[in-house]
Amino acid sequence: MIGYAFMGAAHSQGWRNAHRFFGLPVRPAMSVICGRTESATRAAADTMGWAGWTTDWRQVLDRDDVQVVDICTPGDTHAEIAVAALEAGKHVLCEKPLANTVAEAETMTAAAEAAQARGVLSSVGFNYRRTPALAYARRLVEAGAVGTVRHIRAHYLQDWIVDPEFPLVWRLQKDKAGSGALGDIGAHVVDLSQFLTGQRLTEVSGHLTRFVERRPLARSASGLSASGGAETGEVTVDDAAVFFGRTDGGALATFEATRFATGRKNAMRIELNGSAGSIAFDFESMNELLVYDGTAHPRDAGFRRILVTEPDHPYTGAWWPPGHGLGYEHTFVHEIADFVRDVAAGTPPAPSFADGLQVQRVLDAVERSSAAGAGWTGV
Amino acid sequence: MIGYAFMGAAHSQGWRNAHRFFGLPVRPAMSVICGRTESATRAAADTMGWAGWTTDWRQVLDRDDVQVVDICTPGDTHAEIAVAALEAGKHVLCEKPLANTVAEAETMTAAAEAAQARGVLSSVGFNYRRTPALAYARRLVEAGAVGTVRHIRAHYLQDWIVDPEFPLVWRLQKDKAGSGALGDIGAHVVDLSQFLTGQRLTEVSGHLTRFVERRPLARSASGLSASGGAETGEVTVDDAAVFFGRTDGGALATFEATRFATGRKNAMRIELNGSAGSIAFDFESMNELLVYDGTAHPRDAGFRRILVTEPDHPYTGAWWPPGHGLGYEHTFVHEIADFVRDVAAGTPPAPSFADGLQVQRVLDAVERSSAAGAGWTGV
Amino acid sequence: MIGYAFMGAAHSQGWRNAHRFFGLPVRPAMSVICGRTESATRAAADTMGWAGWTTDWRQVLDRDDVQVVDICTPGDTHAEIAVAALEAGKHVLCEKPLANTVAEAETMTAAAEAAQARGVLSSVGFNYRRTPALAYARRLVEAGAVGTVRHIRAHYLQDWIVDPEFPLVWRLQKDKAGSGALGDIGAHVVDLSQFLTGQRLTEVSGHLTRFVERRPLARSASGLSASGGAETGEVTVDDAAVFFGRTDGGALATFEATRFATGRKNAMRIELNGSAGSIAFDFESMNELLVYDGTAHPRDAGFRRILVTEPDHPYTGAWWPPGHGLGYEHTFVHEIADFVRDVAAGTPPAPSFADGLQVQRVLDAVERSSAAGAGWTGV
Amino acid sequence: MIGYAFMGAAHSQGWRNAHRFFGLPVRPAMSVICGRTESATRAAADTMGWAGWTTDWRQVLDRDDVQVVDICTPGDTHAEIAVAALEAGKHVLCEKPLANTVAEAETMTAAAEAAQARGVLSSVGFNYRRTPALAYARRLVEAGAVGTVRHIRAHYLQDWIVDPEFPLVWRLQKDKAGSGALGDIGAHVVDLSQFLTGQRLTEVSGHLTRFVERRPLARSASGLSASGGAETGEVTVDDAAVFFGRTDGGALATFEATRFATGRKNAMRIELNGSAGSIAFDFESMNELLVYDGTAHPRDAGFRRILVTEPDHPYTGAWWPPGHGLGYEHTFVHEIADFVRDVAAGTPPAPSFADGLQVQRVLDAVERSSAAGAGWTGV
Repeated sequence: MIGYAFMGAAHSQGWRNAHRFFGLPVRPAMSVICGRTESATRAAADTMGWAGWTTDWRQVLDRDDVQVVDICTPGDTHAEIAVAALEAGKHVLCEKPLANTVAEAETMTAAAEAAQARGVLSSVGFNYRRTPALAYARRLVEAGAVGTVRHIRAHYLQDWIVDPEFPLVWRLQKDKAGSGALGDIGAHVVDLSQFLTGQRLTEVSGHLTRFVERRPLARSASGLSASGGAETGEVTVDDAAVFFGRTDGGALATFEATRFATGRKNAMRIELNGSAGSIAFDFESMNELLVYDGTAHPRDAGFRRILVTEPDHPYTGAWWPPGHGLGYEHTFVHEIADFVRDVAAGTPPAPSFADGLQVQRVLDAVERSSAAGAGWTGV
Repeated sequence: MIGYAFMGAAHSQGWRNAHRFFGLPVRPAMSVICGRTESATRAAADTMGWAGWTTDWRQVLDRDDVQVVDICTPGDTHAEIAVAALEAGKHVLCEKPLANTVAEAETMTAAAEAAQARGVLSSVGFNYRRTPALAYARRLVEAGAVGTVRHIRAHYLQDWIVDPEFPLVWRLQKDKAGSGALGDIGAHVVDLSQFLTGQRLTEVSGHLTRFVERRPLARSASGLSASGGAETGEVTVDDAAVFFGRTDGGALATFEATRFATGRKNAMRIELNGSAGSIAFDFESMNELLVYDGTAHPRDAGFRRILVTEPDHPYTGAWWPPGHGLGYEHTFVHEIADFVRDVAAGTPPAPSFADGLQVQRVLDAVERSSAAGAGWTGV
Repeated sequence: MIGYAFMGAAHSQGWRNAHRFFGLPVRPAMSVICGRTESATRAAADTMGWAGWTTDWRQVLDRDDVQVVDICTPGDTHAEIAVAALEAGKHVLCEKPLANTVAEAETMTAAAEAAQARGVLSSVGFNYRRTPALAYARRLVEAGAVGTVRHIRAHYLQDWIVDPEFPLVWRLQKDKAGSGALGDIGAHVVDLSQFLTGQRLTEVSGHLTRFVERRPLARSASGLSASGGAETGEVTVDDAAVFFGRTDGGALATFEATRFATGRKNAMRIELNGSAGSIAFDFESMNELLVYDGTAHPRDAGFRRILVTEPDHPYTGAWWPPGHGLGYEHTFVHEIADFVRDVAAGTPPAPSFADGLQVQRVLDAVERSSAAGAGWTGV
Repeated sequence: MIGYAFMGAAHSQGWRNAHRFFGLPVRPAMSVICGRTESATRAAADTMGWAGWTTDWRQVLDRDDVQVVDICTPGDTHAEIAVAALEAGKHVLCEKPLANTVAEAETMTAAAEAAQARGVLSSVGFNYRRTPALAYARRLVEAGAVGTVRHIRAHYLQDWIVDPEFPLVWRLQKDKAGSGALGDIGAHVVDLSQFLTGQRLTEVSGHLTRFVERRPLARSASGLSASGGAETGEVTVDDAAVFFGRTDGGALATFEATRFATGRKNAMRIELNGSAGSIAFDFESMNELLVYDGTAHPRDAGFRRILVTEPDHPYTGAWWPPGHGLGYEHTFVHEIADFVRDVAAGTPPAPSFADGLQVQRVLDAVERSSAAGAGWTGV
């Protein structure tokens, strides 16, 4: 695994636990973790349960005992590492966003497709697809529970930078993060919209904004030297993004991604309204799915709050009895379990790099629309 | 009162009840109701408690005992009636939308301002401002509870025409209704956004859409002769509208108005996120307001569900004890009570025709933006 | 109508509005209101819309133009007035509790049955039965949606006397109110439990308690002379009651009625769990009913939040479109409408005085159980 | 660890993960797991990550490398194993209920106190105390947020045996499980009531009931031989328990524990109402705590929905960012982390065996009250 920060910890939890609960055909061995800083990487290996560590990701690719590379670094490094890993014959699981630019994502997708022809597989880590309630929602939509989708309403609301004194961490710098709320959290709801409906966004109109232009420099922990508390730097990504779009299936979709929704901690919300029914989800209540059956008599119809913790819901049968919910980290355990099974079976896992590229293209269209006055822009 | 349908019934309930619960300086006498169809108007007069009836609205204006005219007709007739009534020296309460076009709304506003100079007053009926929870929200915003507003997130979701067999009623015809979801329900959330924040939308980007192009002709009840079940007519208004905008206070606002949100019956939702806190409201739970205090320690902070039924909340002290909620119709009782008080005191009531005109201008900008490819369009 | 306070105002709203929305066979004329204090009664007549007033309730019974007497006084006066009214040939609607003692309730019930034989009808005002969501719940239970009822879980939680400085109003005095939380609000949930299930409580075990023993004397408004702020009187009713019981249908029921549930304003909650499903209701969200279909596959099952505002829900078709909710007072409008219809048709209305007596017997059994150490006590 | 079923899996997850997220002074080595069936035990060791396995729990006590014994077996075996383990100098973590009888629990508590004098520590596994929201609630109560507690309202509602065809598993047999809903889930809410308030129940009145008397014999998996589908056995535990009680702090507590609450999967709910405020919790939304500040002006007061996922909430700082919730299993990770820290520090962990005994005494008093006609019964 390359990277040991937030996503590194979450993925490690996935690698440690997947085989404890899911009957995997192979049991993953956690060989080596790679980071830039020696001491931190060594500590992470110990804490997170990796047998070895290194500060040079190319060494990881050289090892014969490494079959899978899991990339958890910031987006600006994804392309180089992923392409090299695929060329080295390693299966690759790459954290989202696939890349910081469409061009990089295209290169990666081409590499992935070439690798797949050689039996080397890859996937991009849109972990929220593995939330049981959303995996179940996908099944419902496929079974026709929503009918013809009319509306997609997707929000991802956070509030961690409302305070203008919050420092200028790497996620607020365009050269490292690629984009702000749009790419970090908007990417998830774009992916989920397409995953749940099986449709693709074809056109968008959008607007990006920044509410706080300069922030205090972050402490050295994030790689910056802060020579004084008063020193500030420029925020170079968006604080919030709003956009709407049309899908190839005729649905009208609206999106909002923001880090300024005071009081909303991780409100990833998505609702579909269709000719036959509706579904609604909020990650702040991740074990629940709301389902409306529009074919019932209106007198008897209502949004059903389904606790997605039953034995035959996706993933949950491997865990605890009904009503004993799961948490955020389980999305990663499920992601790893699915990935390991697919790789073991030689089946191309989903979402593919091509799926990740499609999301990047949507985000890119939003940026272009915003730059050009919000007019309709093709994906 | 001119008009006896849905809004006529709601306003009549207001006129009958306002003085029963609010200590008004004058007690309204319900003199005469006017409609197009004689038998229906006579029946409405009896049911709704009007002393007389007529089918000629000009006769109403001729009566000396009529001091106030309440206009509850479809939007295409507002301008003519309102201007005539103001010129006849009658105070006017006009249902929203103020008019079907900006030009008409401008004429009406000019007439209202001229009349006001003569002591003849007028107001436009954005009844939702009189929801106790929203009136209380306005007080909170004025007191700084939200701080600098960053986000306005406003939806008005209904589902009454999801079924393509639902008939072509007058609200689906542009010549009568002016517009569809945008003008009918979108107008409410535009008004509330501006009312709650005290800010004005200056620019918008939007898109209108229609999911069902033709519908069965309505029965004669709505004035159409249906010569056969199979006969259909063209829907000439929008089914749904999505738009975002910027306010003169720097907030980013998103809007969605639709009649295709399967399962959402009257989900008029509005949320404000600001530097100091947030408020959130859903008309489906109209006696509640959610308030988040962003100045509290995050450990102790959460959205407070306030039951807006206390003696010192707006309007509620006139009614029942705490926890004994009000309903939709009470917004009209409050509207009438406020209007009567203002008229009796000679105080220009709010919202004024000019406020209604500003809403029409926003809606017009959305239509223009939609027609021109969704680019930013000035209000 | 006898009585002009809280219940007087609520019932008057019912009498004024019932014929405006429901097609009643006769239109009630509001002849005369009666109260103890002349000035307040006269003012109430004017505010509430009664043609005349008196301070002697016997005068009301003497009037030939009075056909219905609506009793809204404290419970200690119900028996005398109701019996006299029935004997005078007046139909009687009596606010709950039917009486303050079982003996009085028995006398009243005997009088009601004798009167009914003469075509003189009567009913006790358990208004919450007329909440659309609860009337709909009753229909569902009758149709088998719950199956064999296992659990009844009923709470009525308020918090208006948490503050020990809240004064000693008449509702806290046993000679006037009969009992405290038990009789005032517990009576409602006992009635609803029996109404919804169609079963009767046969045995109970219960406990009454008082958290605050003495309170400041109330102002003269409630008939007491307060000679000084520091003077206090003894609270002679219960502050809270908890009890459980068995029904003749084999269900296990639990109840809690309290005025000390800090933060709960009018949380009248009732849930039924049965072999085929469950229903749940909370008056703080009175336009909603939660329904669980236990016959569905657990994977697809969940509590459905039904907005009870559809045209074919009980009562709601007379009012506004779906999603435009009703309030507390509408329960009284429905009560009056039902009562007028039944009286006009000569049909004995429900709930009868006998039903009110049965509730009093349950409450009495709870008091006896509490006094005797909480053991099982027959109703 | 002794036992490998549901609780065995949950505790193993705790042992594997505690040191990954919490900075423990020692890192647990998972030496040996013990079960009755060789093949299943061997498989569990492999799946759950235990180095060795055995079918003889006495062998575990003989091993010098074992310092802690975690008992996850049915309640009838706790006393023998725990006492032996303590005598062998092993620290003991024992799943609840502490034992199936008060006598056994007393023996265990005596053994625990004797062992503690020798530095051998013990704790009983009321894992729900480690739910972050409930640990935070305890802090709030200690800080006075509720004031004088008036009401405790505690429910534990499940529905897994509503179907009368559900088989007669060990949890439905008194000789193995000790009691039914009362001991299995009622025990949790009794413990939490006392934990949250810092008060003890002194008297109770209760009733146990059984809705289904006989059930099909379970398959051999649970140790029974099912000679035919039609064969049934007697259910010997309660299906549901209702009781109320008084605490030594003057609070009135109500409890309901049932496995027949159709649609309620794991609704462990507890609410406290006090002179200064209220708190409310439902495990089906385990990352949330509702808090009502009764000292605020009623106009501004409401139940705050706090997402208990902030860095300085109990336990959550070790995990993910705000809004990224935890699940059921995390309560065990926290339990193990707390236990390991306490054992390493030589601090007696809470809850102690004496705390477990107190809960057993309450349950026993409920059983005695139920048997004796529901009268008040001392704990």
